[in-house]
Amino acid sequence: MKKGTLHVLSNGKQQPEQLAEIAGRIHPYVDAIHIREKTKTAKEIYELAALLLKHQVPPTKVFINDRVDIAYVLKTGGVHLAYHSLPPDVVKRKFPSLKVGCSVHSINEAQKAQEQGSNYVFFGHVFPTQSKPDIVPRGLEQLALTCSSVSIPVLAIGGIKPANVREAIEKGAAGVAVMSGVLDAEDPLEAVKQYHLKLTN
Amino acid sequence: MKKGTLHVLSNGKQQPEQLAEIAGRIHPYVDAIHIREKTKTAKEIYELAALLLKHQVPPTKVFINDRVDIAYVLKTGGVHLAYHSLPPDVVKRKFPSLKVGCSVHSINEAQKAQEQGSNYVFFGHVFPTQSKPDIVPRGLEQLALTCSSVSIPVLAIGGIKPANVREAIEKGAAGVAVMSGVLDAEDPLEAVKQYHLKLTN
Repeated sequence: MKKGTLHVLSNGKQQPEQLAEIAGRIHPYVDAIHIREKTKTAKEIYELAALLLKHQVPPTKVFINDRVDIAYVLKTGGVHLAYHSLPPDVVKRKFPSLKVGCSVHSINEAQKAQEQGSNYVFFGHVFPTQSKPDIVPRGLEQLALTCSSVSIPVLAIGGIKPANVREAIEKGAAGVAVMSGVLDAEDPLEAVKQYHLKLTN
Repeated sequence: MKKGTLHVLSNGKQQPEQLAEIAGRIHPYVDAIHIREKTKTAKEIYELAALLLKHQVPPTKVFINDRVDIAYVLKTGGVHLAYHSLPPDVVKRKFPSLKVGCSVHSINEAQKAQEQGSNYVFFGHVFPTQSKPDIVPRGLEQLALTCSSVSIPVLAIGGIKPANVREAIEKGAAGVAVMSGVLDAEDPLEAVKQYHLKLTN
């Protein structure tokens, strides 16, 4: 039984060909693969996303971080927006074919994202994570409060491991978003299967 | 008589309100004002461009650097693309309402930009400029060769001052693009009028 969705986010560490090859193998076990390459140019992100499609990743499963134009020209599933991105309501109105997700860090932000038409939110970081060592994690209680404050899916992000997936789901999360847990794993396919197992059993 | 077009490019030095106020005063004398703010986020560029429109700059005169999505949602005149941006042919095909300009540095690049459907190119830098102190300027002869190698308008950029506008036009340039010459001037309106005069007489 499907209990939750799984989003995998790139972290800028893989070479394009390497990331596309991994994405081409793991996509059957994930609901979305996010191109989240903060130091890459538009041309590079465009070429990387096109490479994922070439590796048979379904376009609907590809989400582009921040760059709505790239998502639109490649007809990917959607875009994921940060606070510094174009506002979600503007994107939804002008690019109705794209799903829009937002990163939020509080109940207020989650509610605002919902009001602006976001299709889902990432809430985090929930657990301690190497990528944000100096910020106290928001924890499972805040996750639970956020999940109960909106009707759109809330995905838990930050320090998500197979061992804590179930805790997040039990708190109301619709799924989880994972960066290093999959792409930095020695065997990304095996890693993604472990997450998948926790989300389906 | 109109002899050439004038594009003014922002350079990241002005505060948003200051840039919008200047743009609101100078736009009658220019054909395009480019939002070229390399360190700003999408949200900041969006808000800045919206501020220009609020200051009565005609949308058709606003060009956004690199971010096609922002140009599209604000219905500005067009986008200006660099080598690291989305490819011009992709942008023209997917966003047919936008004019597309490209920065080029050789005849080959200019011809390729034309083949890809660009509406105009910037060629430069033509004269020595503080913003590129270590690169030898391409000079008037290369400008002339580039202008004669394509049928789309070529605008000269780089070190353009009122005193050398006419040389560029005589070499075949359809106009000039100016950054510091206008926005860093003590009196931007007076500065833009000087360029305008050289392009109309």
